[in-house]
This record gives sequence, C-alpha cells and structure tokens, in this order.
Amino acid sequence: MNSIINDIEIIKSETTKIHDVDFDNLAFGSVFSDHMLECNFKDGKWQAPKVVPYQAISLDPSAKIFHYGQSVFEGMKAYKDANEDVYLFRPLDNFNRLNISAKRLAIPELPENYFMDGLKALLEVDKEWIPKQDGSSLYIRPFIFASGNGFHASPANEYKFLICTAPSGSYFSGKVKVLIEQTYSRSANGGVGFAKAGGNYAGQFYPTQLAVEKGYQQVIWTDDTSHEYIEEAGAMNIFVRINDTLITAPTSDRILDGITRKSIVELAKAEGIDVEVRKLSVHEVVEAAKNGSLKEMFGAGTAAVISPISGFGYKDEDFELPELEETFASFLKKRITDIQTNKVEDPFGWRYKLD
Amino acid sequence: MNSIINDIEIIKSETTKIHDVDFDNLAFGSVFSDHMLECNFKDGKWQAPKVVPYQAISLDPSAKIFHYGQSVFEGMKAYKDANEDVYLFRPLDNFNRLNISAKRLAIPELPENYFMDGLKALLEVDKEWIPKQDGSSLYIRPFIFASGNGFHASPANEYKFLICTAPSGSYFSGKVKVLIEQTYSRSANGGVGFAKAGGNYAGQFYPTQLAVEKGYQQVIWTDDTSHEYIEEAGAMNIFVRINDTLITAPTSDRILDGITRKSIVELAKAEGIDVEVRKLSVHEVVEAAKNGSLKEMFGAGTAAVISPISGFGYKDEDFELPELEETFASFLKKRITDIQTNKVEDPFGWRYKLD
Ligand SMILES: Cc1ncc(COP(=O)(O)O)c(C=O)c1O
Ligand SMILES: Cc1ncc(COP(=O)(O)O)c(C=O)c1O
Repeated sequence: MNSIINDIEIIKSETTKIHDVDFDNLAFGSVFSDHMLECNFKDGKWQAPKVVPYQAISLDPSAKIFHYGQSVFEGMKAYKDANEDVYLFRPLDNFNRLNISAKRLAIPELPENYFMDGLKALLEVDKEWIPKQDGSSLYIRPFIFASGNGFHASPANEYKFLICTAPSGSYFSGKVKVLIEQTYSRSANGGVGFAKAGGNYAGQFYPTQLAVEKGYQQVIWTDDTSHEYIEEAGAMNIFVRINDTLITAPTSDRILDGITRKSIVELAKAEGIDVEVRKLSVHEVVEAAKNGSLKEMFGAGTAAVISPISGFGYKDEDFELPELEETFASFLKKRITDIQTNKVEDPFGWRYKLD
Repeated sequence: MNSIINDIEIIKSETTKIHDVDFDNLAFGSVFSDHMLECNFKDGKWQAPKVVPYQAISLDPSAKIFHYGQSVFEGMKAYKDANEDVYLFRPLDNFNRLNISAKRLAIPELPENYFMDGLKALLEVDKEWIPKQDGSSLYIRPFIFASGNGFHASPANEYKFLICTAPSGSYFSGKVKVLIEQTYSRSANGGVGFAKAGGNYAGQFYPTQLAVEKGYQQVIWTDDTSHEYIEEAGAMNIFVRINDTLITAPTSDRILDGITRKSIVELAKAEGIDVEVRKLSVHEVVEAAKNGSLKEMFGAGTAAVISPISGFGYKDEDFELPELEETFASFLKKRITDIQTNKVEDPFGWRYKLD
C-alpha cells in the first residue's frame, strides 16, 4: 500500500506536559502524551488522518457511541532500546485485528496506511514520550467509535478513529488469584467475544467486582453453555502448565486471538517446550491441582505480557499453585520482552523498527 | 421518596428550534427538543440533576465510554391527549429497569427522585415539544455512560446521566419479514442480554446487515447454544399466535423484560385471549407454519408498540404468514395505544399523568 506518511498534516501542541511526568514512576495508562492521531469517517469514507494536540472530543448527546456501544479498540506498545531506536511488536497483527473487530461491529474498516502511517507520524511527533526505562514502554491505544447521531438502533454514518498514547511503567502487580466463573459469562457462541469491542469489557466489571469481594483479583471465563471449558481472562489469554506441557484453549468466536498468546505458543515450541492448543476443561485443571501435576497458570496479554497466577477458586474450593524456582512464565516473559526491546535476535520477524 | 422537583435548577435555552419542526411529518428520533436533563456522578455520588439547553458533550479521549462500552439506556414516550394533558406509560418500570441494567454494567444506580423528578422537570420545560398529532409522541431517551478517564479496563469513577427527547411520528413501516438466526447470537447465558446495555445493540448490526442483504428486515434471535429457541428481536420482544393462543418466551438473563411485552400479556389475558409464556422452539413455529396453525407473529416494543411480521426465513426456506382480517396485533395495538393516550379507561393503572 502507498505510504501517506509525508502527507499527514501535523498540528503541534503549543505546550508540552512532558516535564510534569516522572518517567521513573509511571503507572499504567493514566498520563497521556501531547498528541493524538485523529481520523474521521464521513461521507462514506475515511478522511485523511491528522496528528493533533491531545484534546477533548465534542459530541452530540445523540451520538451513537453513547447509546449503542459501537466501538472497538486495540492495545499495543512502543519500546526504546539502548540506542533510542524505537520498536513496535507485530503491529500489523493489531491493525488486522482492529479491522476484524470493526467488521463484526459494522464499523467501516480502515485502510492499512491510515493506521500504520498515522501511528508512525504520531510516534515521530511524540518520540520523547517513549520511555527508555527498563520495563517501561509507551502504551498505544488505537480506537474507533460511532460519532454519528440519532436514536435509531442502526450503524452510525460517522466514526472517529483515534490513537492516543500513554507512557507506562512495567505492569507488575504480583501474582493474581483467580476465580473460575460458574455463573456469569463474557461472550456467546456467535457473539462478539473474538472482537475487541467495548461492550465485552463493561460486561465483565460486575462479575469481577463480585469475585474481588470474595478475595480474587480476576475472573477466568468459561463457556456460557456448560461453564466447563476454560476460555480466557477477559483482558488476557490463559495458559496452564500440567507437568511439562503448556496448554491453552484454541481461539474461537468467543475468545480474543491474543498476539501475546500466539507469540508464546510459537516461542515455547521453538524452545522445545511441549505445547498443546486444545480445549481445556475445568475438571482436568482441578484434577491436576489435586494430584500435583498442575505446575503453573498464567495470563498473557500486551499490558502485563505474562501475569502469573498463584491459585484459583472453583465452586467454593480454593486451589494453590506450587512456588517453583524456574517457571515457564518467567522464562517466556524474559524471552518475549528481550525480543520486544531489541536485547536479543528476533528469529520470528516480530520486531518492527521505526525509522 | 422526597420530591426534589422544586430544587431542580433550570437553565433555559436562549433560542428555540421548535419552529423548524414539522410536527405533521415527524420521523423517529432525529430531531431533538430544546433541553435535556443532565446529572453527573462524581466523588462517589450522583450530583443534583439540572435541566440545561440541549448541547454537545465534551469528553477526554480516554473517557471509558469510548473504550469499554460502559453504558445503559431506556426508551419511553410521553403522550398528549385532546385536553393537552401529558401522560407517561409505566415510567417507574423504565426507572427500575435502568437501575437493573446499571447494576449489571457496574454503573452506580440512580435515586428514584433524580430520575422521576428530573424527567418531570424536563417535560415541563419542553412541554411544547410533545406532539398532539394522533400517533405521534415524544420519544424519551434516558441514558447513562462512563465519562471518567483512563485506559484501565475497570469501572469509571465518573458517569453522566442524561435524558434527551425527540418528538416522533408513528413508527409505521409496514409489515416486516424476519430471519430466524442460526449463526450469530445476541447474548450469552450469564451475560448482559437482559440489560439495555449499549454493546448489545452494536453486536446486532452486522448480522442484521447480512439478513437485510438476503431480503429480510430484522433478525429473530435464538439461544446461542442450540439456536432452537426463539428469544427476541433485539429491540422488540416476540409474540407468536398459533391457532388462537398467543405465545411469548419467558424472560431470562438473555432477554430484555420488555414493558410492552408484559403489558400485552396482561392485556390479552384480561381480554380473554389464551396466553402462554413458555419456551417456544423454532421447530414448533415451522411446523405450525406448515400445517396452517401459525396465524400471526409480531414484535412488541416502545418504539413501534406492535410491529406485525409478514413472514420468516429459516435455514434457506421462507414461510409466509396468512393475511387475516382481524388480528390480535391490531386489536392489542389499539387497546394499548388507547390506554397510553387516555382515550379509554386504564383498569391496570399503567397511565401516569403529569401535572
Ligand atoms: C479479551 C482479551 N483477551 C486477550 C487479550 C490479550 O491480547 P494481546 O496479547 O493481543 O494483547 C486481550 C488484550 O488485548 C483482551 O482484551
Ligand atoms: C432488546 C430489547 N428487547 C425488547 C424491547 C422492548 O422493550 P419495551 O417494550 O420496554 O420497549 C427493547 C426496546 O426497548 C429492547 O431494546
């Protein structure tokens, strides 16, 4: 596709907030860089993207985003290596997934160069916002929402595609204790679970609050028909290690096709780890916990990369996982982070250098 | 609950758009009245509601509504009778359902007087906007969305509750041909289908587009496990008449508890019609269509009240419904509309007079 990078209009902010930011103590996704990418869909097509100062958005109260949840998003990161070179990780996969999500939500798909060149132009302008600190990165949030007006329950005729960025610290919050959900569900067969659609997240908040009240930090979603198969964690895919085999559920129309998940599957295989992508029943995990063959569980997603699980609750019973010296979780996390941040060779071609 | 109606601050619009509106040719939900109710949740509580000029809303790009679909809404109508008295229809049911939806979406529930008195204050200010024309009404859209900021996938700390209104003509669009869906689904067991959550609507747009391409106007949703049970139409509940029995599916966590639906059930019973609230299989409806016992199908919801169905598609076969002289649909629609608009007695206590 044609590059449009030199045609992207750039309207620079007259001030910068960068001096207020303590890059050594960054939280996650709560401080935003000076600029954003803005691109509007109207008159039947996506208009030229622009880099503009990060600023409030003004919408009519009848804008469809407020009523019908027509929105999709992505989550990705930019890293700076020791030379201050900037890298993305498999960005075309995020672009493709954004369009897969958009299609399911009846949102017009984006041209690849609007996404990729728009992102590059934005990162060039806000290069100083990409943290150099080890473990830190620039969290990137591309999103599209229905900005067109009217109370008809039908797709909007106008949309906004924005990319905002937030310098973020390493997402370490210790091990998490999870609840294997037996009442609520995240997604339906034939639904939108495979899409990064806004509504999928709001629907998880209440069941997660209930789990938190019971002493868990996160919910592991199961299929909505039987609650017998482990699906994902709602913002992370799930891996289970039984003896020395790493198992993760196949993606489906209910499960997001996580980029971290598929990278881990490839990486683990390349490292000689026995990997199985197959349906994983709660029964099997509980049995493995009981007989001691359950060694590890962890979540995998862009924000935390890998998030180890200390134990799980299932039907009023709690199961603890062993404390191992050497875990697949920490080994794989280091491998993938080293690739992302250009500390090691990248035999997979995942790293994407910006120039 | 205490009335707060005299404490509601009213900021009047300096201009009016009412003279631009042709009340004899109103469409649905596309012209908005001069004012709106606005109420903000912050610092852990709902702040006092205000009537303000209908105006754009300004939000940070990180506002959670754009990312996590945290929003719920209601749909109701105000009617003017021949004396210019104004009536609502079962408004407390809308209020209660809004809070049921809010709770499931982890949105703080509203106090009853904020909703009811806020609505009354708004309708008083915009009284002239309530159409007098037969078949017309003021469509009322209460909604709540997450206005708090941040990329964390967690409930927002700030929300906006707004009520906007739109004078609307009668929602007549002829009979509709529907597709009984066998691939896509609207909601999951244990999901948010019973809530009027924004995301439920966006998820329907794409499957509906596919149905429209095949020559249908709407989708009839079935359960996501077997696609064998008829659920609802996505903005309407569904009734089927087999011989002289009127059947509708029981509500569940996948089906919205429609106010029109439950009013029709009560009304039909009071009129001596045989009504069954029970699971309704596609198989049964197809058999009834084949043997001629299927007399009618119709949707029921606030916007159209009752929307008759001319035929349905199921697995590549089309079934036509008979053209009857006297239908339950038109009989019940007249009964309910006459009650709503104060043309007849209301033995049920559904009509709610504003003073
Ligand atoms: C529902 C869901 N599952 C899984 C993931 C992990 O996907 P990825 O590794 O691409 O970040 C995410 C987060 O992006 C998610 O939102
Ligand atoms: C999903 C859904 N089902 C049914 C209905 C009908 O409900 P009511 O009769 O309360 O308008 C609506 C519309 O409000 C709806 O959105």
